[in-house]
Amino acid sequence: MNFSVHPVPNVPMIHPGDDLGALLCDALGQAQLGPQNGDILVVCQKVVSKAEGRVVNLNTVTPSPFARQLAAMTTDKDPRVVEVILAETSRIVKMDRGHLIVETGPGYVCANAGVDESNSLDDETVILLPKDSDASAHRIAAAIKIRAKREVAVIVTDTFGRPWREGLVDFALGVAGMEPLLDLRGQKDLNGRELHHTVHAQADALAAAAGLVMRKGAGIPAAIIRGYAYQHADGGAAKLLRSREFDLFR
Amino acid sequence: MNFSVHPVPNVPMIHPGDDLGALLCDALGQAQLGPQNGDILVVCQKVVSKAEGRVVNLNTVTPSPFARQLAAMTTDKDPRVVEVILAETSRIVKMDRGHLIVETGPGYVCANAGVDESNSLDDETVILLPKDSDASAHRIAAAIKIRAKREVAVIVTDTFGRPWREGLVDFALGVAGMEPLLDLRGQKDLNGRELHHTVHAQADALAAAAGLVMRKGAGIPAAIIRGYAYQHADGGAAKLLRSREFDLFR
Repeated sequence: MNFSVHPVPNVPMIHPGDDLGALLCDALGQAQLGPQNGDILVVCQKVVSKAEGRVVNLNTVTPSPFARQLAAMTTDKDPRVVEVILAETSRIVKMDRGHLIVETGPGYVCANAGVDESNSLDDETVILLPKDSDASAHRIAAAIKIRAKREVAVIVTDTFGRPWREGLVDFALGVAGMEPLLDLRGQKDLNGRELHHTVHAQADALAAAAGLVMRKGAGIPAAIIRGYAYQHADGGAAKLLRSREFDLFR
Repeated sequence: MNFSVHPVPNVPMIHPGDDLGALLCDALGQAQLGPQNGDILVVCQKVVSKAEGRVVNLNTVTPSPFARQLAAMTTDKDPRVVEVILAETSRIVKMDRGHLIVETGPGYVCANAGVDESNSLDDETVILLPKDSDASAHRIAAAIKIRAKREVAVIVTDTFGRPWREGLVDFALGVAGMEPLLDLRGQKDLNGRELHHTVHAQADALAAAAGLVMRKGAGIPAAIIRGYAYQHADGGAAKLLRSREFDLFR
Protein backbone atom coordinates (compact mmCIF):
# COMPACT_ATOMS: atom_id res chain seq x y z
CA MET A 1 0.00 0.00 0.00
CA ASN A 2 1.26 3.48 -0.75
CA PHE A 3 0.12 6.67 0.88
CA SER A 4 0.40 10.38 0.19
CA VAL A 5 0.94 13.40 2.39
CA HIS A 6 -0.68 16.73 1.50
CA PRO A 7 -0.18 20.11 3.13
CA VAL A 8 -3.35 21.97 4.10
CA PRO A 9 -2.86 25.62 3.19
CA ASN A 10 -5.26 28.56 3.69
CA VAL A 11 -5.94 27.91 7.35
CA PRO A 12 -6.66 31.39 8.74
CA MET A 13 -4.89 32.80 11.81
CA ILE A 14 -6.50 31.00 14.75
CA HIS A 15 -7.76 32.84 17.82
CA PRO A 16 -9.12 31.60 21.16
CA GLY A 17 -12.64 30.27 20.76
CA ASP A 18 -12.36 29.52 17.03
CA ASP A 19 -14.01 26.30 15.82
CA LEU A 20 -10.80 24.74 14.56
CA GLY A 21 -12.44 21.61 13.15
CA ALA A 22 -14.78 23.73 11.03
CA LEU A 23 -11.97 26.00 9.83
CA LEU A 24 -9.84 22.98 8.89
CA CYS A 25 -12.79 21.47 7.05
CA ASP A 26 -13.16 24.68 5.03
CA ALA A 27 -9.44 24.79 4.29
CA LEU A 28 -9.51 21.15 3.15
CA GLY A 29 -12.38 21.90 0.81
CA GLN A 30 -10.60 24.94 -0.64
CA ALA A 31 -7.51 22.82 -1.25
CA GLN A 32 -9.51 20.16 -3.12
CA LEU A 33 -8.72 17.85 -0.23
CA GLY A 34 -12.27 17.31 1.02
CA PRO A 35 -11.91 14.61 3.70
CA GLN A 36 -12.38 10.96 2.75
CA ASN A 37 -13.12 8.07 5.08
CA GLY A 38 -9.82 6.68 6.35
CA ASP A 39 -7.85 9.90 5.93
CA ILE A 40 -5.58 10.94 8.75
CA LEU A 41 -5.70 14.66 9.52
CA VAL A 42 -2.55 15.85 11.26
CA VAL A 43 -2.77 19.18 13.07
CA CYS A 44 0.04 21.02 14.79
CA GLN A 45 -0.43 21.72 18.47
CA LYS A 46 0.01 25.44 18.09
CA VAL A 47 -3.30 26.08 16.32
CA VAL A 48 -5.07 23.63 18.63
CA SER A 49 -3.75 25.46 21.69
CA LYS A 50 -4.63 28.84 20.25
CA ALA A 51 -8.20 27.76 19.48
CA GLU A 52 -8.51 26.35 22.99
CA GLY A 53 -7.23 29.51 24.61
CA ARG A 54 -4.10 27.79 25.94
CA VAL A 55 -2.18 31.06 25.75
CA VAL A 56 -0.68 33.09 28.56
CA ASN A 57 -0.08 36.81 28.53
CA LEU A 58 3.31 37.27 30.16
CA ASN A 59 2.19 40.56 31.70
CA THR A 60 -0.01 38.53 34.02
CA VAL A 61 2.88 36.34 35.23
CA THR A 62 5.00 36.99 38.32
CA PRO A 63 8.08 34.78 38.30
CA SER A 64 8.92 32.96 41.52
CA PRO A 65 12.44 33.13 42.98
CA PHE A 66 13.10 29.62 41.58
CA ALA A 67 11.99 30.69 38.11
CA ARG A 68 14.29 33.74 38.35
CA GLN A 69 17.15 31.50 39.39
CA LEU A 70 16.58 29.11 36.47
CA ALA A 71 16.28 32.01 34.04
CA ALA A 72 19.59 33.40 35.29
CA MET A 73 21.23 30.06 34.48
CA THR A 74 20.09 30.25 30.87
CA THR A 75 21.15 32.86 28.37
CA ASP A 76 17.92 33.62 26.58
CA LYS A 77 14.89 32.90 28.73
CA ASP A 78 12.51 35.45 30.22
CA PRO A 79 11.89 34.59 33.94
CA ARG A 80 8.16 34.89 33.27
CA VAL A 81 8.43 32.24 30.55
CA VAL A 82 10.31 29.99 32.98
CA GLU A 83 7.50 30.50 35.50
CA VAL A 84 4.96 29.40 32.88
CA ILE A 85 7.12 26.36 32.04
CA LEU A 86 7.34 25.34 35.69
CA ALA A 87 3.56 25.63 36.06
CA GLU A 88 3.23 23.05 33.25
CA THR A 89 5.90 20.78 34.73
CA SER A 90 5.36 17.73 36.89
CA ARG A 91 9.06 16.80 37.07
CA ILE A 92 12.37 18.16 35.83
CA VAL A 93 14.14 15.41 33.86
CA LYS A 94 17.30 17.37 33.01
CA MET A 95 18.43 20.89 33.76
CA ASP A 96 21.74 21.47 32.12
CA ARG A 97 23.59 23.95 29.90
CA GLY A 98 20.63 26.31 29.60
CA HIS A 99 18.19 23.55 28.68
CA LEU A 100 15.19 22.51 30.67
CA ILE A 101 13.85 19.06 29.77
CA VAL A 102 10.76 18.29 31.81
CA GLU A 103 7.89 15.91 32.15
CA THR A 104 4.51 17.61 31.75
CA GLY A 105 1.34 16.75 33.63
CA PRO A 106 0.11 14.36 30.92
CA GLY A 107 3.56 12.71 30.84
CA TYR A 108 5.25 14.10 27.72
CA VAL A 109 8.98 14.58 28.14
CA CYS A 110 10.10 17.60 26.15
CA ALA A 111 12.05 20.84 26.32
CA ASN A 112 10.39 23.75 28.13
CA ALA A 113 7.18 21.77 28.73
CA GLY A 114 6.29 22.56 25.12
CA VAL A 115 5.79 26.24 25.99
CA ASP A 116 6.34 28.11 22.77
CA GLU A 117 7.28 31.69 22.10
CA SER A 118 7.12 31.69 18.29
CA ASN A 119 3.98 32.01 16.20
CA SER A 120 2.07 33.21 19.25
CA LEU A 121 -0.39 36.04 19.05
CA ASP A 122 2.06 38.78 20.02
CA ASP A 123 5.41 39.31 21.71
CA GLU A 124 3.96 39.16 25.21
CA THR A 125 2.10 35.90 24.71
CA VAL A 126 3.27 32.29 24.92
CA ILE A 127 1.44 29.14 23.88
CA LEU A 128 1.03 26.09 26.12
CA LEU A 129 0.40 22.51 25.02
CA PRO A 130 -3.28 21.54 24.89
CA LYS A 131 -4.58 20.35 28.27
CA ASP A 132 -5.75 17.03 26.79
CA SER A 133 -4.52 16.53 23.23
CA ASP A 134 -6.51 13.31 22.77
CA ALA A 135 -9.70 15.20 23.58
CA SER A 136 -8.61 17.94 21.15
CA ALA A 137 -8.07 15.32 18.44
CA HIS A 138 -11.47 13.77 19.14
CA ARG A 139 -13.16 17.18 18.93
CA ILE A 140 -11.60 17.88 15.52
CA ALA A 141 -12.61 14.41 14.25
CA ALA A 142 -16.15 15.00 15.48
CA ALA A 143 -16.33 18.40 13.74
CA ILE A 144 -15.18 16.78 10.47
CA LYS A 145 -17.78 14.05 10.86
CA ILE A 146 -20.58 16.59 11.36
CA ARG A 147 -19.53 18.86 8.51
CA ALA A 148 -18.15 16.46 5.92
CA LYS A 149 -19.89 13.23 6.98
CA ARG A 150 -16.55 11.43 6.86
CA GLU A 151 -14.63 9.39 9.45
CA VAL A 152 -11.03 10.52 9.74
CA ALA A 153 -8.37 9.85 12.33
CA VAL A 154 -6.75 12.94 13.84
CA ILE A 155 -3.23 13.33 15.21
CA VAL A 156 -2.23 16.47 17.11
CA THR A 157 1.52 16.98 16.86
CA ASP A 158 4.35 19.01 18.26
CA THR A 159 7.93 19.42 17.14
CA PHE A 160 10.48 18.08 19.63
CA GLY A 161 14.22 17.62 19.81
CA ARG A 162 15.61 14.18 20.60
CA PRO A 163 18.47 12.91 22.75
CA TRP A 164 21.57 11.93 20.78
CA ARG A 165 20.34 13.36 17.49
CA GLU A 166 20.35 16.80 15.91
CA GLY A 167 17.31 18.42 14.39
CA LEU A 168 13.64 18.45 15.26
CA VAL A 169 10.96 15.94 14.30
CA ASP A 170 7.19 16.02 14.81
CA PHE A 171 5.69 13.68 17.40
CA ALA A 172 2.11 12.66 18.22
CA LEU A 173 0.68 14.44 21.27
CA GLY A 174 -2.93 13.44 20.77
CA VAL A 175 -4.52 10.65 18.74
CA ALA A 176 -8.17 9.96 17.86
CA GLY A 177 -9.61 7.28 15.60
CA MET A 178 -6.63 4.93 15.34
CA GLU A 179 -4.16 2.97 17.46
CA PRO A 180 -0.97 4.97 18.07
CA LEU A 181 1.01 1.73 18.23
CA LEU A 182 1.02 -0.99 15.57
CA ASP A 183 1.75 -4.25 17.31
CA LEU A 184 3.34 -6.86 15.03
CA ARG A 185 4.47 -9.16 17.83
CA GLY A 186 3.66 -12.78 17.17
CA GLN A 187 4.21 -12.39 13.44
CA LYS A 188 7.14 -14.29 11.94
CA ASP A 189 10.28 -13.06 10.20
CA LEU A 190 11.38 -14.47 6.83
CA ASN A 191 12.95 -17.48 8.56
CA GLY A 192 9.88 -18.24 10.62
CA ARG A 193 11.37 -16.78 13.81
CA GLU A 194 8.90 -14.81 15.88
CA LEU A 195 9.37 -11.04 15.91
CA HIS A 196 9.87 -10.04 19.52
CA HIS A 197 10.46 -6.33 19.60
CA THR A 198 8.25 -5.13 16.81
CA VAL A 199 5.79 -2.59 18.08
CA HIS A 200 5.81 0.35 15.67
CA ALA A 201 5.00 3.85 16.90
CA GLN A 202 2.88 4.49 13.84
CA ALA A 203 1.32 7.72 15.14
CA ASP A 204 4.79 9.18 15.71
CA ALA A 205 5.92 8.09 12.24
CA LEU A 206 2.78 9.61 10.69
CA ALA A 207 3.42 12.81 12.66
CA ALA A 208 7.00 12.90 11.35
CA ALA A 209 5.77 12.35 7.78
CA ALA A 210 3.22 15.15 8.08
CA GLY A 211 5.87 17.41 9.60
CA LEU A 212 7.67 17.30 6.25
CA VAL A 213 4.89 19.36 4.63
CA MET A 214 3.66 21.44 7.57
CA ARG A 215 5.28 24.87 7.83
CA LYS A 216 4.00 26.66 10.87
CA GLY A 217 5.94 29.78 9.96
CA ALA A 218 4.34 29.76 6.50
CA GLY A 219 0.82 29.19 7.76
CA ILE A 220 0.54 25.47 6.98
CA PRO A 221 -0.46 24.02 10.34
CA ALA A 222 -2.05 20.79 9.08
CA ALA A 223 -1.63 17.93 6.65
CA ILE A 224 -3.76 15.13 5.26
CA ILE A 225 -2.36 11.60 4.98
CA ARG A 226 -4.30 9.58 2.45
CA GLY A 227 -4.03 5.88 1.67
CA TYR A 228 -2.37 4.69 4.87
CA ALA A 229 -4.39 1.66 5.99
CA TYR A 230 -5.23 1.44 9.66
CA GLN A 231 -7.87 -0.06 11.85
CA HIS A 232 -10.36 2.26 13.46
CA ALA A 233 -9.78 2.53 17.21
CA ASP A 234 -10.41 5.03 19.93
CA GLY A 235 -6.84 6.32 20.05
CA GLY A 236 -5.05 7.68 23.10
CA ALA A 237 -1.52 9.04 22.78
CA ALA A 238 -0.71 7.98 26.34
CA LYS A 239 0.13 4.57 24.85
CA LEU A 240 3.14 6.26 23.25
CA LEU A 241 4.49 7.38 26.60
CA ARG A 242 6.85 4.96 28.28
CA SER A 243 6.13 4.66 31.95
CA ARG A 244 8.85 5.97 34.22
CA GLU A 245 9.34 2.46 35.59
CA PHE A 246 10.49 1.11 32.21
CA ASP A 247 12.37 4.20 31.07
CA LEU A 248 16.15 4.11 31.22
CA PHE A 249 16.50 7.86 30.68
CA ARG A 250 14.43 9.37 33.50
CA MET B 1 3.95 20.29 -2.18
CA ASN B 2 2.62 16.81 -1.52
CA PHE B 3 4.61 13.62 -1.65
CA SER B 4 3.88 9.91 -1.78
CA VAL B 5 5.47 6.89 -0.18
CA HIS B 6 5.55 3.57 -2.04
CA PRO B 7 6.68 0.18 -0.77
CA VAL B 8 9.16 -1.67 -3.00
CA PRO B 9 8.12 -5.34 -3.06
CA ASN B 10 9.78 -8.26 -4.84
CA VAL B 11 13.28 -7.61 -3.55
CA PRO B 12 14.84 -11.10 -3.46
CA MET B 13 16.54 -12.53 -0.38
CA ILE B 14 19.89 -10.73 -0.24
CA HIS B 15 23.17 -12.55 0.25
CA PRO B 16 26.73 -11.32 0.84
CA GLY B 17 28.20 -9.99 -2.38
CA ASP B 18 24.87 -9.24 -4.05
CA ASP B 19 24.68 -6.02 -6.09
CA LEU B 20 21.95 -4.46 -3.98
CA GLY B 21 21.61 -1.32 -6.12
CA ALA B 22 20.99 -3.43 -9.22
CA LEU B 23 18.51 -5.71 -7.44
CA LEU B 24 16.61 -2.70 -6.08
CA CYS B 25 16.55 -1.18 -9.56
CA ASP B 26 15.02 -4.38 -10.94
CA ALA B 27 12.45 -4.50 -8.12
CA LEU B 28 11.52 -0.85 -8.76
CA GLY B 29 11.00 -1.58 -12.44
CA GLN B 30 8.82 -4.62 -11.66
CA ALA B 31 6.70 -2.51 -9.32
CA GLN B 32 6.17 0.17 -12.02
CA LEU B 33 8.22 2.47 -9.83
CA GLY B 34 11.14 3.00 -12.21
CA PRO B 35 13.24 5.69 -10.51
CA GLN B 36 12.67 9.35 -11.41
CA ASN B 37 15.03 12.24 -10.82
CA GLY B 38 14.44 13.61 -7.34
CA ASP B 39 13.05 10.39 -5.87
CA ILE B 40 14.30 9.33 -2.48
CA LEU B 41 15.02 5.62 -2.18
CA VAL B 42 14.87 4.41 1.40
CA VAL B 43 16.53 1.08 2.13
CA CYS B 44 16.55 -0.76 5.42
CA GLN B 45 19.94 -1.47 6.91
CA LYS B 46 19.36 -5.18 7.08
CA VAL B 47 19.57 -5.83 3.35
CA VAL B 48 22.47 -3.37 3.03
CA SER B 49 24.41 -5.21 5.72
CA LYS B 50 23.63 -8.60 4.21
CA ALA B 51 24.83 -7.50 0.76
CA GLU B 52 27.99 -6.09 2.31
CA GLY B 53 28.72 -9.25 4.25
CA ARG B 54 28.25 -7.55 7.61
CA VAL B 55 27.10 -10.81 9.14
CA VAL B 56 28.75 -12.85 11.88
CA ASN B 57 28.40 -16.57 12.37
CA LEU B 58 28.04 -17.04 16.11
CA ASN B 59 29.94 -20.32 15.93
CA THR B 60 33.08 -18.29 15.26
CA VAL B 61 32.62 -16.12 18.37
CA THR B 62 34.17 -16.77 21.77
CA PRO B 63 32.57 -14.58 24.43
CA SER B 64 34.89 -12.76 26.81
CA PRO B 65 34.32 -12.94 30.57
CA PHE B 66 32.77 -9.43 30.43
CA ALA B 67 30.37 -10.50 27.68
CA ARG B 68 29.40 -13.55 29.76
CA GLN B 69 28.80 -11.34 32.75
CA LEU B 70 26.58 -8.95 30.77
CA ALA B 71 24.66 -11.83 29.25
CA ALA B 72 24.02 -13.24 32.72
CA MET B 73 22.49 -9.88 33.70
CA THR B 74 19.98 -10.08 30.87
CA THR B 75 17.31 -12.71 30.49
CA ASP B 76 17.45 -13.49 26.80
CA LYS B 77 20.86 -12.73 25.29
CA ASP B 78 23.35 -15.27 24.03
CA PRO B 79 26.85 -14.41 25.43
CA ARG B 80 28.21 -14.67 21.88
CA VAL B 81 25.73 -12.03 20.72
CA VAL B 82 26.84 -9.80 23.60
CA GLU B 83 30.45 -10.31 22.49
CA VAL B 84 29.52 -9.18 18.96
CA ILE B 85 27.68 -6.15 20.39
CA LEU B 86 30.70 -5.14 22.46
CA ALA B 87 32.95 -5.42 19.42
CA GLU B 88 30.72 -2.83 17.69
CA THR B 89 30.60 -0.57 20.76
CA SER B 90 32.74 2.48 21.43
CA ARG B 91 30.98 3.39 24.67
CA ILE B 92 28.21 2.03 26.88
CA VAL B 93 25.60 4.78 27.38
CA LYS B 94 23.25 2.82 29.64
CA MET B 95 23.29 -0.71 30.98
CA ASP B 96 20.17 -1.30 32.97
CA ARG B 97 17.30 -3.78 33.40
CA GLY B 98 18.57 -6.13 30.71
CA HIS B 99 19.06 -3.38 28.14
CA LEU B 100 22.32 -2.33 26.59
CA ILE B 101 22.24 1.14 25.01
CA VAL B 102 25.59 1.92 23.40
CA GLU B 103 27.38 4.29 21.14
CA THR B 104 28.77 2.60 18.04
CA GLY B 105 32.01 3.45 16.28
CA PRO B 106 30.33 5.86 13.83
CA GLY B 107 28.47 7.51 16.76
CA TYR B 108 24.93 6.11 16.60
CA VAL B 109 23.36 5.63 20.00
CA CYS B 110 21.09 2.60 19.93
CA ALA B 111 20.22 -0.63 21.67
CA ASN B 112 22.63 -3.55 21.19
CA ALA B 113 24.80 -1.56 18.75
CA GLY B 114 22.17 -2.34 16.12
CA VAL B 115 23.18 -6.02 16.13
CA ASP B 116 20.14 -7.89 14.93
CA GLU B 117 19.08 -11.47 15.39
CA SER B 118 15.90 -11.47 13.30
CA ASN B 119 15.73 -11.81 9.52
CA SER B 120 19.32 -12.99 9.44
CA LEU B 121 20.45 -15.81 7.23
CA ASP B 122 20.01 -18.55 9.82
CA ASP B 123 19.73 -19.10 13.55
CA GLU B 124 23.48 -18.95 14.10
CA THR B 125 24.02 -15.67 12.27
CA VAL B 126 23.57 -12.07 13.40
CA ILE B 127 23.62 -8.91 11.29
CA LEU B 128 25.74 -5.86 12.11
CA LEU B 129 25.12 -2.29 11.01
CA PRO B 130 26.92 -1.30 7.79
CA LYS B 131 30.48 -0.12 8.41
CA ASP B 132 29.81 3.21 6.68
CA SER B 133 26.13 3.70 5.89
CA ASP B 134 26.77 6.94 3.97
CA ALA B 135 29.10 5.05 1.66
CA SER B 136 26.46 2.32 1.32
CA ALA B 137 23.85 4.94 0.38
CA HIS B 138 26.23 6.50 -2.17
CA ARG B 139 26.91 3.10 -3.74
CA ILE B 140 23.19 2.40 -4.15
CA ALA B 141 22.62 5.87 -5.66
CA ALA B 142 25.52 5.29 -8.06
CA ALA B 143 24.10 1.91 -9.12
CA ILE B 144 20.71 3.53 -9.83
CA LYS B 145 22.39 6.26 -11.83
CA ILE B 146 24.27 3.74 -13.97
CA ARG B 147 21.28 1.46 -14.56
CA ALA B 148 18.34 3.86 -14.71
CA LYS B 149 20.16 7.10 -15.65
CA ARG B 150 18.34 8.88 -12.84
CA GLU B 151 19.57 10.91 -9.86
CA VAL B 152 17.97 9.75 -6.64
CA ALA B 153 18.80 10.42 -3.01
CA VAL B 154 19.26 7.33 -0.85
CA ILE B 155 18.61 6.93 2.87
CA VAL B 156 19.72 3.78 4.69
CA THR B 157 17.55 3.26 7.78
CA ASP B 158 17.29 1.23 10.92
CA THR B 159 14.49 0.82 13.41
CA PHE B 160 15.30 2.16 16.88
CA GLY B 161 13.53 2.60 20.17
CA ARG B 162 13.50 6.04 21.80
CA PRO B 163 13.86 7.29 25.36
CA TRP B 164 10.56 8.27 27.00
CA ARG B 165 8.39 6.85 24.25
CA GLU B 166 7.00 3.43 23.42
CA GLY B 167 7.30 1.81 20.03
CA LEU B 168 9.93 1.78 17.33
CA VAL B 169 10.50 4.30 14.55
CA ASP B 170 12.87 4.22 11.57
CA PHE B 171 15.87 6.56 11.63
CA ALA B 172 18.42 7.58 9.00
CA LEU B 173 21.77 5.79 9.33
CA GLY B 174 23.21 6.81 5.99
CA VAL B 175 22.30 9.60 3.59
CA ALA B 176 23.44 10.29 0.02
CA GLY B 177 22.24 13.00 -2.37
CA MET B 178 20.49 15.35 0.06
CA GLU B 179 21.02 17.31 3.26
CA PRO B 180 19.91 15.28 6.29
CA LEU B 181 19.03 18.51 8.10
CA LEU B 182 16.74 21.23 6.72
CA ASP B 183 17.85 24.49 8.27
CA LEU B 184 15.08 27.10 8.45
CA ARG B 185 16.91 29.40 10.87
CA GLY B 186 16.76 33.02 9.86
CA GLN B 187 13.27 32.64 8.40
CA LYS B 188 10.51 34.53 10.15
CA ASP B 189 7.38 33.30 11.92
CA LEU B 190 3.94 34.70 11.14
CA ASN B 191 4.60 37.70 13.39
CA GLY B 192 7.98 38.46 11.85
CA ARG B 193 9.94 36.97 14.76
CA GLU B 194 12.98 35.03 13.68
CA LEU B 195 12.75 31.24 14.08
CA HIS B 196 15.58 30.22 16.38
CA HIS B 197 15.33 26.51 16.89
CA THR B 198 14.07 25.35 13.56
CA VAL B 199 16.43 22.82 12.10
CA HIS B 200 14.37 19.89 10.88
CA ALA B 201 15.81 16.39 10.82
CA GLN B 202 14.29 15.76 7.41
CA ALA B 203 16.19 12.52 6.74
CA ASP B 204 14.90 11.05 10.00
CA ALA B 205 11.34 12.16 9.18
CA LEU B 206 11.65 10.64 5.70
CA ALA B 207 12.99 7.44 7.25
CA ALA B 208 10.02 7.34 9.63
CA ALA B 209 7.60 7.91 6.74
CA ALA B 210 9.17 5.11 4.71
CA GLY B 211 9.10 2.84 7.76
CA LEU B 212 5.29 2.96 7.56
CA VAL B 213 5.34 0.91 4.33
CA MET B 214 8.48 -1.19 4.79
CA ARG B 215 7.86 -4.61 6.30
CA LYS B 216 11.12 -6.41 6.79
CA GLY B 217 9.32 -9.54 7.97
CA ALA B 218 7.20 -9.50 4.80
CA GLY B 219 10.10 -8.94 2.43
CA ILE B 220 9.60 -5.21 1.80
CA PRO B 221 12.99 -3.76 2.69
CA ALA B 222 12.75 -0.53 0.69
CA ALA B 223 10.46 2.35 -0.20
CA ILE B 224 10.36 5.16 -2.73
CA ILE B 225 9.41 8.68 -1.67
CA ARG B 226 8.25 10.71 -4.64
CA GLY B 227 7.45 14.41 -4.80
CA TYR B 228 9.31 15.59 -1.71
CA ALA B 229 11.31 18.62 -2.86
CA TYR B 230 14.90 18.84 -1.67
CA GLN B 231 18.14 20.35 -2.79
CA HIS B 232 20.78 18.02 -4.09
CA ALA B 233 23.71 17.75 -1.67
CA ASP B 234 26.36 15.23 -0.81
CA GLY B 235 24.63 13.94 2.30
CA GLY B 236 26.31 12.56 5.41
CA ALA B 237 24.21 11.19 8.25
CA ALA B 238 26.84 12.25 10.79
CA LYS B 239 25.13 15.66 10.76
CA LEU B 240 22.20 13.97 12.49
CA LEU B 241 24.38 12.84 15.39
CA ARG B 242 24.58 15.24 18.28
CA SER B 243 28.11 15.52 19.55
CA ARG B 244 28.64 14.22 23.05
CA GLU B 245 29.57 17.72 24.19
CA PHE B 246 26.09 19.08 23.43
CA ASP B 247 24.14 15.99 24.44
CA LEU B 248 22.32 16.05 27.77
CA PHE B 249 21.68 12.30 27.77
CA ARG B 250 25.15 10.81 27.43
